[in-house]
Amino acid sequence: MVRPVCARPLAVAVALLGWLTLSATSLRAQEPRPPEVRFTTEEAFDAAKLPAYAGRHDATYAYIDAHLPEHLEQLRRWVRQPSVSAQNRGILEMANLLAEDLRTLGFKEVALVPTSGYPGVWAYYDAGAKKTLVVYLMYDVQPEETGWSVPAFDGALVDKPLGKLLMARGAVNQKGPERAFLNALQAILDTEGKLPVNLMVAAEGEEELGSPHYREVIDKYEARLRSAEGVFFPMPSQDPSGNVSLPLGVKGILSFELEARGGERGGPTRAEIHSSLKAIVDAPALRLVQALATLTTPDGNTIRVPGYYDAIRSPNLEEQRLVNGAARAFAGREEALRQTLGVARFSEGLAGRDLLSRWLFTTTININGLWSGYSGSGMKTILPHVATARLDSRLVPNQTPDAQLELIRKHLDANGFADVIVRKLAGYPPAQSSVEAPLVQAAIGVFNKYGATPSVAPRLAGSAPYYLFTERLKLPMVAAGLGHGSGAHAPDEYLVIEPKPDSKVAGLAQMEKFYVDLLFALAQAGGR
Amino acid sequence: MVRPVCARPLAVAVALLGWLTLSATSLRAQEPRPPEVRFTTEEAFDAAKLPAYAGRHDATYAYIDAHLPEHLEQLRRWVRQPSVSAQNRGILEMANLLAEDLRTLGFKEVALVPTSGYPGVWAYYDAGAKKTLVVYLMYDVQPEETGWSVPAFDGALVDKPLGKLLMARGAVNQKGPERAFLNALQAILDTEGKLPVNLMVAAEGEEELGSPHYREVIDKYEARLRSAEGVFFPMPSQDPSGNVSLPLGVKGILSFELEARGGERGGPTRAEIHSSLKAIVDAPALRLVQALATLTTPDGNTIRVPGYYDAIRSPNLEEQRLVNGAARAFAGREEALRQTLGVARFSEGLAGRDLLSRWLFTTTININGLWSGYSGSGMKTILPHVATARLDSRLVPNQTPDAQLELIRKHLDANGFADVIVRKLAGYPPAQSSVEAPLVQAAIGVFNKYGATPSVAPRLAGSAPYYLFTERLKLPMVAAGLGHGSGAHAPDEYLVIEPKPDSKVAGLAQMEKFYVDLLFALAQAGGR
Repeated sequence: MVRPVCARPLAVAVALLGWLTLSATSLRAQEPRPPEVRFTTEEAFDAAKLPAYAGRHDATYAYIDAHLPEHLEQLRRWVRQPSVSAQNRGILEMANLLAEDLRTLGFKEVALVPTSGYPGVWAYYDAGAKKTLVVYLMYDVQPEETGWSVPAFDGALVDKPLGKLLMARGAVNQKGPERAFLNALQAILDTEGKLPVNLMVAAEGEEELGSPHYREVIDKYEARLRSAEGVFFPMPSQDPSGNVSLPLGVKGILSFELEARGGERGGPTRAEIHSSLKAIVDAPALRLVQALATLTTPDGNTIRVPGYYDAIRSPNLEEQRLVNGAARAFAGREEALRQTLGVARFSEGLAGRDLLSRWLFTTTININGLWSGYSGSGMKTILPHVATARLDSRLVPNQTPDAQLELIRKHLDANGFADVIVRKLAGYPPAQSSVEAPLVQAAIGVFNKYGATPSVAPRLAGSAPYYLFTERLKLPMVAAGLGHGSGAHAPDEYLVIEPKPDSKVAGLAQMEKFYVDLLFALAQAGGR
Repeated sequence: MVRPVCARPLAVAVALLGWLTLSATSLRAQEPRPPEVRFTTEEAFDAAKLPAYAGRHDATYAYIDAHLPEHLEQLRRWVRQPSVSAQNRGILEMANLLAEDLRTLGFKEVALVPTSGYPGVWAYYDAGAKKTLVVYLMYDVQPEETGWSVPAFDGALVDKPLGKLLMARGAVNQKGPERAFLNALQAILDTEGKLPVNLMVAAEGEEELGSPHYREVIDKYEARLRSAEGVFFPMPSQDPSGNVSLPLGVKGILSFELEARGGERGGPTRAEIHSSLKAIVDAPALRLVQALATLTTPDGNTIRVPGYYDAIRSPNLEEQRLVNGAARAFAGREEALRQTLGVARFSEGLAGRDLLSRWLFTTTININGLWSGYSGSGMKTILPHVATARLDSRLVPNQTPDAQLELIRKHLDANGFADVIVRKLAGYPPAQSSVEAPLVQAAIGVFNKYGATPSVAPRLAGSAPYYLFTERLKLPMVAAGLGHGSGAHAPDEYLVIEPKPDSKVAGLAQMEKFYVDLLFALAQAGGR
């Protein structure tokens, strides 16, 4: 649901960064105002200035090239096992398949971790190394939707303008890159005998449900996890042109519903009634729109809930430098982004660094869905007894879901909307890693080795529950890799296996070599 | 769709009447205020004071009693012929069946009337009488919904606490009473040789679609129709206890949609986008709720569109007297009405005559349906590209749909919502007949004869396109009769055929005798 990969189809978008300085005076005024943007440095971070990773692991690379057909079959074996968490389809089979593959690789400690939902999978590989890396994996996938041109769970290989693709549910989100990562481990083990770092795998089967029980996996292994250098999530980071984006964090999210119902105050309580009764009976749907309208300015772009912007911290110099760097990479690309999104104009006509700043550093309130009464064809002249809005609010440091929700509740109460129900659905705070973390530096170095210098952003505008790693375990996290895929929650999801010769996109072999290098680079890097 | 019979399940509700005096000052103020209620007379109309119809037509009554089994079979024959206008199911068959039945009765002039939709049926019976009555008939029915306990088109006869019922689609809405009316004509013709008045039948097959082409039938016969005394629509007027309500008019209606879409101003234009983009892209759903919120006060009960109340005329003395009378009949029945509707409290705690006044004499704006984005289970964090609200506004004299819609458009424009689309779906003005009309007086006299003195209201809060008769043809209209049925747009629609012995509800025979008497009473009444 709330997904890091949601931003993947917006590959160009991931390059967007920004910075937003909030003046203390405007934040504490009675009437909230749009946060002001203020930069205190014009320095720009440039990933190209970091040294490229210099290590060479030719035997392992050769092994990968020689075993590529078997490696591809491993990916196909994974996507052929449905594991649809929303439908409880194949979940346990996939958990066991993952556990068995880890055992086969040589992980001595492998266990299914019971949770209140589907089990997690824990595994530990002891290389006797100084450094330990946590690998986050998800073994569930989205349900199959209509519109597929191949069976979603067949592991089809198709030829397209981008090259030879694996087209299947899970191809890119996330079985393809995950199994490619395990292929890389196999290649190292078969050529070097052991891994350069110890590995802790902490997997879940409910990522597509919003990771509701993943914290129970963390709970069980917290002390051991804290000893690691960082957390890695295998993720193809290239857009179709080969450009790489490396966001170092995510926004948090608050998902909630507002609902107006008939009750003691008035309105029909049991069911819809004939709309001729509006003259003497209150209408919950009119009530809901009134409550919703108080949340924002008429353009919908400034939040009028008192204090909603107060918790937002000022940006640090690192974040400013990252945004300045990203703004240079983004220069002149507004039009392409607008065309990708089908948007004629960005809010308030924003462009350049202002656009990036607003995107990455502003909290939002947005309606995901709105429903009441009759929405079919023709007319049904009714007065509905209930009206509901599902909303999300994207959170930036240091906002937290519960504090923001409490502000909304207080605001509604203060404006006479105590009768409007506020229902929390889900939420977690933002997460962020420093570009100075050795794991991040190692990843950038490996990208540079392959001529794929990333555009580094302090965060994505999207959300994922990475706070469990960055805020709770205090570990840096990197979700990255070479390779390209798309269609995460859409028909014809794909991962490029063998790109066209003139492409800058990495194929499966190069994806695996990136993972090989990353483990060695981390082993050589300084401590965190 | 917008149906006079919608108010039938609210039998107690139909007894509610009211009167609302609008001060000219408040109407013309910049900020609209709730219309004030002011009565200039406390006189109350009492239908019991009108003389009961004294005529006796014993031979015809005896004929009805003797032929009741065949008469019931005629009703069953009609309901067994499906005529679902929404599904184009059996429409032409039913039009021909109606035309053929009219020919069989002795109507010399019978014709299907082509329209832009389904044909109307025109028929004329020349009795050589001084007076002519127009009979409005609808030959279509609602679609069959789930939940029926008998086949909807079988003409089932079932025994229930109310007595023996005809349970079928169309039993009450409107084939049952309509064919009972034709049975009454047959009884007169077979006993008296001719009818006491000339009859013009002007039927349509699109009532359940909102009568979109009925005006084309009126167009064709306008001059002849204008020569009539009034218009009659056979309708069982008793509630389950036998009480009779006689509303003399209907509110008008304006059905329309407000829609916000992404466009030049901003927002996604092609499809939903990921909600993380809210930070830089306008949200049509937030825009829609802002526009909707400007239409009313926060409680949803006072319309803030400038001028929206201006066209409403002051009530005349007749209307005041009718409401005063209805208020006496309504005394102490608020609780029963609230329970019927499932409403804990009427708007602003209204009760008694104030409640009736507000109900019948206030214009409304109401949301019938509201939809945007994702409303399924789970979460989908999207920014929808379109948000739509379907609304209706009930109109009272002298409001007209187009003028009211123009006020809404102007209001939105003036408040910066020119981007919000206003789409008219349907509409027609209110309709009303005077209690002094000979046709109305005749109907009340016949009700009185049977000890079923009606509670007379100046109108229903519901809507029907009766303006075609009352405003365009300047003819009074009566929709009335003895008898009881319910479930017009619901499963197990029924008409009472043979009530339990202790019931005040009329059965089929008495329904038909009412129609017989009404025709003779009209023939004897003064001219309009």
